[in-house]
Amino acid sequence: MSSFEHLHLEIPKSDKQRIVIIGGGFGGIQLVKTLQKSNFQIVLLDRHNYHTFQPLLYQVATAGLEPDSIAGALRQLFARHKDFYFRMARVTGIDSERKVIKTLVGELEYDLLVIANGSKTNYFGDKEMYNRTFPMKQIPQALDLRSHMLQNFEQTVLSKEDEEKDRLTNFVIVGGGPTGVEVAGALGELKKHVLPNDYPDIDFDIMKLHLVDAGPRLLAGMSEKSSAKAELYLKDFDVDVRLNTRLVSYDGRDVVLTDGTVIPAKTVIWAAGVTGNIMDGLPKESIGGGRIIVNEFNEVKGLQDVFALGDIAGMYTAQTPKGHPMVAPVAIQQATNLGKNLMRAQKGKSLKPFVYKDKGSMATIGRNRAVVDLPKFHFGGLFAWMVWMFIHLMSIVGFRNRLVILANWVWNYLTYDRGTRLIIRTFVRNKDYKPGDTL
Amino acid sequence: MSSFEHLHLEIPKSDKQRIVIIGGGFGGIQLVKTLQKSNFQIVLLDRHNYHTFQPLLYQVATAGLEPDSIAGALRQLFARHKDFYFRMARVTGIDSERKVIKTLVGELEYDLLVIANGSKTNYFGDKEMYNRTFPMKQIPQALDLRSHMLQNFEQTVLSKEDEEKDRLTNFVIVGGGPTGVEVAGALGELKKHVLPNDYPDIDFDIMKLHLVDAGPRLLAGMSEKSSAKAELYLKDFDVDVRLNTRLVSYDGRDVVLTDGTVIPAKTVIWAAGVTGNIMDGLPKESIGGGRIIVNEFNEVKGLQDVFALGDIAGMYTAQTPKGHPMVAPVAIQQATNLGKNLMRAQKGKSLKPFVYKDKGSMATIGRNRAVVDLPKFHFGGLFAWMVWMFIHLMSIVGFRNRLVILANWVWNYLTYDRGTRLIIRTFVRNKDYKPGDTL
Repeated sequence: MSSFEHLHLEIPKSDKQRIVIIGGGFGGIQLVKTLQKSNFQIVLLDRHNYHTFQPLLYQVATAGLEPDSIAGALRQLFARHKDFYFRMARVTGIDSERKVIKTLVGELEYDLLVIANGSKTNYFGDKEMYNRTFPMKQIPQALDLRSHMLQNFEQTVLSKEDEEKDRLTNFVIVGGGPTGVEVAGALGELKKHVLPNDYPDIDFDIMKLHLVDAGPRLLAGMSEKSSAKAELYLKDFDVDVRLNTRLVSYDGRDVVLTDGTVIPAKTVIWAAGVTGNIMDGLPKESIGGGRIIVNEFNEVKGLQDVFALGDIAGMYTAQTPKGHPMVAPVAIQQATNLGKNLMRAQKGKSLKPFVYKDKGSMATIGRNRAVVDLPKFHFGGLFAWMVWMFIHLMSIVGFRNRLVILANWVWNYLTYDRGTRLIIRTFVRNKDYKPGDTL
Repeated sequence: MSSFEHLHLEIPKSDKQRIVIIGGGFGGIQLVKTLQKSNFQIVLLDRHNYHTFQPLLYQVATAGLEPDSIAGALRQLFARHKDFYFRMARVTGIDSERKVIKTLVGELEYDLLVIANGSKTNYFGDKEMYNRTFPMKQIPQALDLRSHMLQNFEQTVLSKEDEEKDRLTNFVIVGGGPTGVEVAGALGELKKHVLPNDYPDIDFDIMKLHLVDAGPRLLAGMSEKSSAKAELYLKDFDVDVRLNTRLVSYDGRDVVLTDGTVIPAKTVIWAAGVTGNIMDGLPKESIGGGRIIVNEFNEVKGLQDVFALGDIAGMYTAQTPKGHPMVAPVAIQQATNLGKNLMRAQKGKSLKPFVYKDKGSMATIGRNRAVVDLPKFHFGGLFAWMVWMFIHLMSIVGFRNRLVILANWVWNYLTYDRGTRLIIRTFVRNKDYKPGDTL
């Protein structure tokens, strides 16, 4: 989209109070659902026209699923809501004095504002990493990685030099959180079961997977038992797990690690962390720790009628000095609580503070294996893997998506195959995303 | 893919004769299948890693199907073939003296060469049309059109001026062949059944579909009865069908037609024709009518051991003075005949000339309606539509694709919905394809 002068972000005025929600992620859509029968006018803004089910993004990147099955068109999700308006618009800033949100297609007044625009890949300011590595936050990024990976194997077939073959088939994954671990597992499975059928000319012993994490264990947010199990599972896939290690430099050809290792690699997947998507115009006092500071009612510090929730919200309390983990359940629970509070406030009732109920966390590592942490119980293996599948299938939006994903999983499981190995997007090295997009 | 110096197109030498096949379209893959148990070494080259089932491309463009279901990964199709090599390579030319094919990743020697690289969109040399209109030949093009179309509706919601709204919601389709007619029907169905649910803010009476053809009737390759029926079906969808009309100019904003009509439109779909994908290095005498001239054994005029088949091949005989129609059945039948001839020749047997068996043609126009021409019988309506679906489903490669397409069709039919309305590709106006790519 090039020029927007002719566009105007206008929503019909009504006698109801207008709540503007920025972001159609887990928090944003939960808030719309919670407010469905409320007495507000709801406006949802997102720069995409779809909600992304991020926990399965790594399966799009590794050719297990097509993007349509992990996304839900936002208009479709709320087609039956009354007094609901979706607008595709990229928010650029806020003017809290005038109670106005600024977007690329014009301004919009709010009575109440909820900032739920989540987090973006954190490159810690390193432009080289931003330019040369693959992030894993959005569907287009996952599709880029998939096409790049398949192109690398096509080039490996055409390559004669051993070092070049190594470079094309090596994968370095930076970050041992759930994304890094799940990508490594999925790549391990591709290497073991899928790719050798496609590329009989390639000796897949040369394909090496390296998982690098700065901390002392994988899945730092989970139990030590699960961390150890995940490491074991990955090593079964021949993944080279390097803890207490950082990436020193990467020039697009060779990765240099803090332990001095040099790995020739055309593919570096950057899953080292995320940081809040902070818009312009917020007062300084509202920002802290890379997030927007909120109280236990999700009210933004220093502003009136403005709320933040999910990854972007830093609710720094005695129990959560670093804020809550940046995961979907926090966003969903905050959205439910905030939605109810907004309806309570409208009726003059008192507000309830947010209390996070940690229902557990999980990660899968290839076929038949996962780790699950419940509050009082940790387990792994086949049963954990089945729990992982069931929970994800039930969490995804839309009956159609559930069916398509289940069908794909059954197919992939039974055939040791992947249905979606098309190189559709031409990979662009030194990508040129808009500033502030993901850097 | 930027630099290819390090890549080499090398295939292990064997004592068998090497057949190099350029293009994994309908003809190319049929030839590989026919030669499966032959005594040749087979090398298949394509610039994509997948075969495209082009007859359903319009459903990808109009959000009815995802690309994976109409494509087949070429490596996967022939995973069990022996002495078969696929290489992803863009062919640039031929040196018939040295019996060498030139590609972006190096040269390759052939004993026998089969040119089956099909046709490309014919802009009749008009750069403006090439830059500003949407072709419908390849999967990335169909995805571009889909994202563009959905972006237009998002912008319509944000637009205040009536002329701008018209421009965003008008579609001009140039060319009344099967592609143009089927796209028009699919858009008509979107307008009538699908889009109004998504965009309650838009009055869809403003969305106008215009189908322009230079000739006196639609579907010129079919019977007059079917042409008339197709026009009737389209008019039921309020499609403005303009025959004996050409596009005079298009500046990206307004279409001007030969009858003087000016249509404000941001979307012009170019389905006005195709022309052979002729590579460099062929002698002048081998080329005629935009195709490579072949005899009835598909041997290229003026060359030794070089064959051409399908869209690219002009078999100009007394019965077919303009060559055969550029459709899949011709390519498939020529490939079968050529494959058998190559095996016969190897055994010293005599060759059989190609005879086209026209089994009929068909086109679908939205829900429940199609036209079918069999050699001695023409029919339309619901039964034709069911025949159309059955034939297409049975023709597509791969059991998985068949299942996925059937499931999507049933879903779309029952719910009046489309599952895949994601704006994933940012539309680039004034596209900059490589020279010779599609112009």
